[in-house]
Amino acid sequence: MNRSESPSFGHAQMVEVQCGKEVRIIKPCNLYGCSIGDHSFIGPFVEIQSKASIGKNSRIQSHCFVCSLVEIGDSCFVGHGVTFVNDLFKDGKPSKDERDWLPTKIGNEVSIGSGSTILPVKICDGCVVGAGSVVVRDLTVRGVYAGNPAKLIREI
Amino acid sequence: MNRSESPSFGHAQMVEVQCGKEVRIIKPCNLYGCSIGDHSFIGPFVEIQSKASIGKNSRIQSHCFVCSLVEIGDSCFVGHGVTFVNDLFKDGKPSKDERDWLPTKIGNEVSIGSGSTILPVKICDGCVVGAGSVVVRDLTVRGVYAGNPAKLIREI
Amino acid sequence: MNRSESPSFGHAQMVEVQCGKEVRIIKPCNLYGCSIGDHSFIGPFVEIQSKASIGKNSRIQSHCFVCSLVEIGDSCFVGHGVTFVNDLFKDGKPSKDERDWLPTKIGNEVSIGSGSTILPVKICDGCVVGAGSVVVRDLTVRGVYAGNPAKLIREI
Repeated sequence: MNRSESPSFGHAQMVEVQCGKEVRIIKPCNLYGCSIGDHSFIGPFVEIQSKASIGKNSRIQSHCFVCSLVEIGDSCFVGHGVTFVNDLFKDGKPSKDERDWLPTKIGNEVSIGSGSTILPVKICDGCVVGAGSVVVRDLTVRGVYAGNPAKLIREI
Repeated sequence: MNRSESPSFGHAQMVEVQCGKEVRIIKPCNLYGCSIGDHSFIGPFVEIQSKASIGKNSRIQSHCFVCSLVEIGDSCFVGHGVTFVNDLFKDGKPSKDERDWLPTKIGNEVSIGSGSTILPVKICDGCVVGAGSVVVRDLTVRGVYAGNPAKLIREI
Repeated sequence: MNRSESPSFGHAQMVEVQCGKEVRIIKPCNLYGCSIGDHSFIGPFVEIQSKASIGKNSRIQSHCFVCSLVEIGDSCFVGHGVTFVNDLFKDGKPSKDERDWLPTKIGNEVSIGSGSTILPVKICDGCVVGAGSVVVRDLTVRGVYAGNPAKLIREI
């Protein structure tokens, strides 16, 4: 680089966010094109992309990233620094075609421990994911899961 | 959701933080009800909750989350994106009763690698936790630990 | 602590960043002394340190931390919450002597999944690192890698 040019800047903000009743949001955050149900809470330093939806009475804690096509149910707890994924890089790189992105569906009363990474999966109602886990498969049995990759520790 | 309501907003900020001498803090950060000892440093995009304490000459790097009941000693280094946990979801969901939360005690001269997740444990003086680790048990022998779950690599 | 003193504050900002053409940056971010190539993108809540360089047409997504001595090539994708490391705490603690820090070199067209931690390594052109991985060794064969520690899943 011989000389420095001026970059263009955007700012973390809220754009076209559909909120239910009594939603509480801590700024700075970067939320766009998503929906957030009644009485849910969004902590600081969170990004939620378009076509993601959060149910009612759920908490998305600080530092989370919720990508497009993630659907989170009611009364869920998503811990601090939890990251969702919708692109498996199947052609060896990110796909720019949204049709290649995969959905994630988190049921109701699911608790996801802080620092976890969630690939495109379904997680059934009432599951608990331990902190620091990497979830790579559907969790179809109500239970406690942990590890990388996350495995069933015990049913509940 | 038929129509969008206005959420209520909070802002990442400092509220009732007890600071020693020559503490340096990079904003934005969300710190409330915690204490920070002399000459310690807090990087940007950090959240520290009430009833957490940081000792003297310690560094909490960017993107960390330090929860209630975490006590960090003197001359510690907490790398970027380190997340602490105080609730083990023992009833299959987050507890709203603080009496269920568990404490973490980090000794002096402890170095925690970036991207690690620390469950409620004790870590003895001088330990090193490798980057990307998940610490699920007390570390009672001075040594280098790494992995998920973190295991002793070698004593020091 | 008997009484609380006033801390000194810094603010996440851009200082001495060398940018190519049509770089786009989402604030808040904390970038200092680094270089960013033409047409690259930096998401919100990102920290990039001095002596780090990002190539052309690359994306550094939200919540990343890119440390000194990291060199990222062209057309790379660095997912959300990816953390780089340059200090292996070889004396049992962080080194204040930059000569102890180790470089990371990421080739071109490398895709790093969200939530990954990258120790000081070389990653060859075209590699894919799965989400939530911890990369502790050089990746010298073009392939898909995942896990903690990251292992070769398949060549590509």
